[in-house]
Amino acid sequence: MYGKERVYKKVEVIGVSPTSIDDAIKAALHRAHHSLEKVSWFEVEEMRGHVNDDGEIAEYQVILKVAFKLK
Amino acid sequence: MYGKERVYKKVEVIGVSPTSIDDAIKAALHRAHHSLEKVSWFEVEEMRGHVNDDGEIAEYQVILKVAFKLK
Amino acid sequence: MYGKERVYKKVEVIGVSPTSIDDAIKAALHRAHHSLEKVSWFEVEEMRGHVNDDGEIAEYQVILKVAFKLK
Amino acid sequence: MYGKERVYKKVEVIGVSPTSIDDAIKAALHRAHHSLEKVSWFEVEEMRGHVNDDGEIAEYQVILKVAFKLK
Amino acid sequence: MYGKERVYKKVEVIGVSPTSIDDAIKAALHRAHHSLEKVSWFEVEEMRGHVNDDGEIAEYQVILKVAFKLK
Amino acid sequence: MYGKERVYKKVEVIGVSPTSIDDAIKAALHRAHHSLEKVSWFEVEEMRGHVNDDGEIAEYQVILKVAFKLK
Amino acid sequence: MYGKERVYKKVEVIGVSPTSIDDAIKAALHRAHHSLEKVSWFEVEEMRGHVNDDGEIAEYQVILKVAFKLK
Amino acid sequence: MYGKERVYKKVEVIGVSPTSIDDAIKAALHRAHHSLEKVSWFEVEEMRGHVNDDGEIAEYQVILKVAFKLK
Amino acid sequence: MYGKERVYKKVEVIGVSPTSIDDAIKAALHRAHHSLEKVSWFEVEEMRGHVNDDGEIAEYQVILKVAFKLK
Amino acid sequence: MYGKERVYKKVEVIGVSPTSIDDAIKAALHRAHHSLEKVSWFEVEEMRGHVNDDGEIAEYQVILKVAFKLK
Amino acid sequence: MYGKERVYKKVEVIGVSPTSIDDAIKAALHRAHHSLEKVSWFEVEEMRGHVNDDGEIAEYQVILKVAFKLK
Amino acid sequence: MYGKERVYKKVEVIGVSPTSIDDAIKAALHRAHHSLEKVSWFEVEEMRGHVNDDGEIAEYQVILKVAFKLK
Repeated sequence: MYGKERVYKKVEVIGVSPTSIDDAIKAALHRAHHSLEKVSWFEVEEMRGHVNDDGEIAEYQVILKVAFKLK
Repeated sequence: MYGKERVYKKVEVIGVSPTSIDDAIKAALHRAHHSLEKVSWFEVEEMRGHVNDDGEIAEYQVILKVAFKLK
Repeated sequence: MYGKERVYKKVEVIGVSPTSIDDAIKAALHRAHHSLEKVSWFEVEEMRGHVNDDGEIAEYQVILKVAFKLK
Repeated sequence: MYGKERVYKKVEVIGVSPTSIDDAIKAALHRAHHSLEKVSWFEVEEMRGHVNDDGEIAEYQVILKVAFKLK
Repeated sequence: MYGKERVYKKVEVIGVSPTSIDDAIKAALHRAHHSLEKVSWFEVEEMRGHVNDDGEIAEYQVILKVAFKLK
Repeated sequence: MYGKERVYKKVEVIGVSPTSIDDAIKAALHRAHHSLEKVSWFEVEEMRGHVNDDGEIAEYQVILKVAFKLK
Repeated sequence: MYGKERVYKKVEVIGVSPTSIDDAIKAALHRAHHSLEKVSWFEVEEMRGHVNDDGEIAEYQVILKVAFKLK
Repeated sequence: MYGKERVYKKVEVIGVSPTSIDDAIKAALHRAHHSLEKVSWFEVEEMRGHVNDDGEIAEYQVILKVAFKLK
Repeated sequence: MYGKERVYKKVEVIGVSPTSIDDAIKAALHRAHHSLEKVSWFEVEEMRGHVNDDGEIAEYQVILKVAFKLK
Repeated sequence: MYGKERVYKKVEVIGVSPTSIDDAIKAALHRAHHSLEKVSWFEVEEMRGHVNDDGEIAEYQVILKVAFKLK
Repeated sequence: MYGKERVYKKVEVIGVSPTSIDDAIKAALHRAHHSLEKVSWFEVEEMRGHVNDDGEIAEYQVILKVAFKLK
Repeated sequence: MYGKERVYKKVEVIGVSPTSIDDAIKAALHRAHHSLEKVSWFEVEEMRGHVNDDGEIAEYQVILKVAFKLK
């Protein structure tokens, strides 16, 4: 694969999941892969979350860059 | 709203206005909201400007990230 | 050109070329200009490369931001 | 004032206002000054905002550091 | 909730847990929520850990910012 | 204007104004334009301020880079 | 342990695992501990991953710094 | 000490001393230790100083983060 | 040369060239060396460029710091 | 290649060449490949250079990270 | 002093001293104060040093920003 | 010395000393010079320290990069 001229694009997405960091990453990848373009790789940029009134984590929010090969 | 799986996308835009920082932000939001997608929030990244020959500010340039919910 | 309200968008792309940093930049600009939109300027973000088994540079990878005027 | 041993503390606060960046800064300073301690100076860290369904800015959010002299 | 003047405070805490990154985050949130104030959201700043003499992870250390609404 | 060999210089200045962020920017630009050289553009680096004993903003301090064309 | 003159070295490693972020960290620590030197602590620098043609995560890649006491 | 669930808090303080960087650090630690909580460690963030009319250093200002164990 | 008390100054300049990154660096160094002071070293800060209507690079813009020994 | 547990190491090297940025990169890669280990990829961190008394570039200095697969 | 419109300029200088970090700072301040303008404050940016063949520190190099009030 | 092709390597080390920042730097340099390779220069990355139960500095920890010429 290496050594051929080609071009990729990176897009910033935020996955949100009530269950885990990993599920938030997967939600973002699933959504990007199916509605934008076929994802080649991802990079985690930030991890955050919302906390409900009982002090429990209501949701995990993961900011990712996802990269696609431009055809 | 919190606690449901969902995905957002962030896009980088630059608003330019001859009048003020705030108008440059609003120009970018207006343009993004109407031609790209419905904006949920924005983050100011950089503020710059061009100066004319008399030393007056010819325009304000504000670099923003704007976020949309992917449907 | 200065002093009129207008809006730009920045997109992150990665150009890959077996020959040089400059060719990797040009590959990315060519691709962005012809398939996305007419590019106004670019900013180099990172320069990387892959090395083959003989220790030679197999390809240069340049991560760029490219900016377009939104019409 | 310079040249005497003394100690300051910095605290991170976020001011939110529906009207402007400046009002968001003032809301944060007012609140910090009256409920925490007497503020000496502030530093703007980030500026963000929420956008409503019509594409208008619903509120400005300014993240500040505020500094107090410890007595 | 958006559009009303209000003020938040962010505090930096470090959660430590022998079991996982997620447990370290939860330890910090639990402690902050019950002894400081009711947490609204958190942001992960750094993830580290200590390794014991056998090369196993003795503990995960997660540095977070936690945010509270000031009343 | 594009496409000709030329050289610019950037200088860091701090504008201070009792009235607003915008006036602090303009104070710095005015001073740089008239005593240093003719400014082409500016970039905002930091925004800070001093607070008086009543909790009011005594002054806004804006750190800018200003750019000149070297002749 | 504190208060004695001593020296540590930090080395940057990348752990790759098809199963999870945690397994990628552990792969890197295990490898560093057994072939380089006895690790004292680690710091996570970046988290990335490769995505296969079906949009599933093919592997997690975690960039770490690991620290050793120099003897 | 390692391997037990526990939580720390980090606070940003600024020590000022007319004599040296080290004395500015010690002023901040002394003040934090005696009026806030028992300090576990510190991290130097920035070093600055004020200069008097003769060009001599009037004072050293050191911005630190200090960490406490939450009990 | 090492071991003697001396002082350098760094200045930020931007070289622009229609031909290459290297020519943009050389334009800036040439200009700084002949009109400001004798340059000791340079550091590349950013690389950017302008693109013309045909998608070709109209010019390369390189932001440098150049250092001079103060005599 | 993707999807198998493996570990890489990154090392920071500086290549110096009197002729060009590209030659400085190649000098570093050649040296790392032959005396340290077989390089998989590289990342450019900084580009600098020394200037001689005539204002010509005496040498280019490129700071790189190079990555090896640990076996 | 606060509350009046005024403008400062910041300049980057490097002080070098064979004896200590503090002497390197003072060398830079002394030189800036006497040949450039009257310094108001300084900020330490980086600390480095050269090591001689015996492994002793040959000199300390401190990169500072120094600020002057523009009159 | 300038103008010849050559390669350096940078390694990250942490010096710890109960007495001062300078002694922590010297401990790291001494250790690196005698057990790794002959050091050419160093760069201070971070300064931290541990505080004992009485609020006194138990030790200074300085994170450095040290550079060697590869032969």
